[in-house]
Amino acid sequence: MNFSIREGKITDMPSVLSLIKELAHFEKEPEAVEISVADLEKDGFGNAPLFKTYVAEIDGEIVGMALFYPRYSTWKGPTIHLEDLIVKKNKRGLNIGSELYKKVITYGSKLGVKRMEWVVLDWNTPAIEFYKKTGAYILDDWKTVQMDELAIKNYLDSL
Amino acid sequence: MNFSIREGKITDMPSVLSLIKELAHFEKEPEAVEISVADLEKDGFGNAPLFKTYVAEIDGEIVGMALFYPRYSTWKGPTIHLEDLIVKKNKRGLNIGSELYKKVITYGSKLGVKRMEWVVLDWNTPAIEFYKKTGAYILDDWKTVQMDELAIKNYLDSL
Repeated sequence: MNFSIREGKITDMPSVLSLIKELAHFEKEPEAVEISVADLEKDGFGNAPLFKTYVAEIDGEIVGMALFYPRYSTWKGPTIHLEDLIVKKNKRGLNIGSELYKKVITYGSKLGVKRMEWVVLDWNTPAIEFYKKTGAYILDDWKTVQMDELAIKNYLDSL
Repeated sequence: MNFSIREGKITDMPSVLSLIKELAHFEKEPEAVEISVADLEKDGFGNAPLFKTYVAEIDGEIVGMALFYPRYSTWKGPTIHLEDLIVKKNKRGLNIGSELYKKVITYGSKLGVKRMEWVVLDWNTPAIEFYKKTGAYILDDWKTVQMDELAIKNYLDSL
């Protein structure tokens, strides 16, 4: 099966949201997706877009996508964060994921960023093995910390 | 000792870099800081700034800072990432860190972000305890993955 990869357009956002939901399901948090197609259209295609995407297509159907955006390291300078890399379950094994990955890393390299970064679930062994094989490092000693909307509100109310 | 907090200006970047180096030393990676004052000036104060800062001042001396920037969650939408929160060693215990923290979270709350996020070293127990006390969650199952400049080059060369 032949696929092609191109930059995501505003009209791809319904398909992108389906893929986001498929990944959330795989990551065992299907209820966590609060975002809508309208949010993705507004946030990714306004005056100051908050992310970019690449999509993989087979016969006009979006079967995979990578979503990424700039970050900043106070040690290295500008970086690119890969937020999501998703291939439809019934289209795995066709090399689509590794081609999307290559495309994002090539994009970062052309921009001259000093680092690419992302996160992975510690039980997602196939992903971890793939990343290691490409020369990426798993940083075992850094933990992610988050405050959601309710935690932010509770904290500020408590002051 | 009285301190005040304000938004960081371009002329604060030399002091900001000193604090970044102090934190890298504390994090046992003193050699990791490759960034220069000129980089911080260019990246933080151009047409499309890559970060914002708050600085804490005592008698005109910068004694602490928080550096942060927008990110994007495909589950929640716009977020703020707190990259660094640093107080000079000889100015700890004056509540400066918690006031900088409050300032950044207030900023995110006013923007209407759905999440604040950052990372912490797993051995930095005082920081972890502080974050937990404010209602933040430590996500134990997510690992950070990175490719540095050399790894990016090696990976792309290998294709």
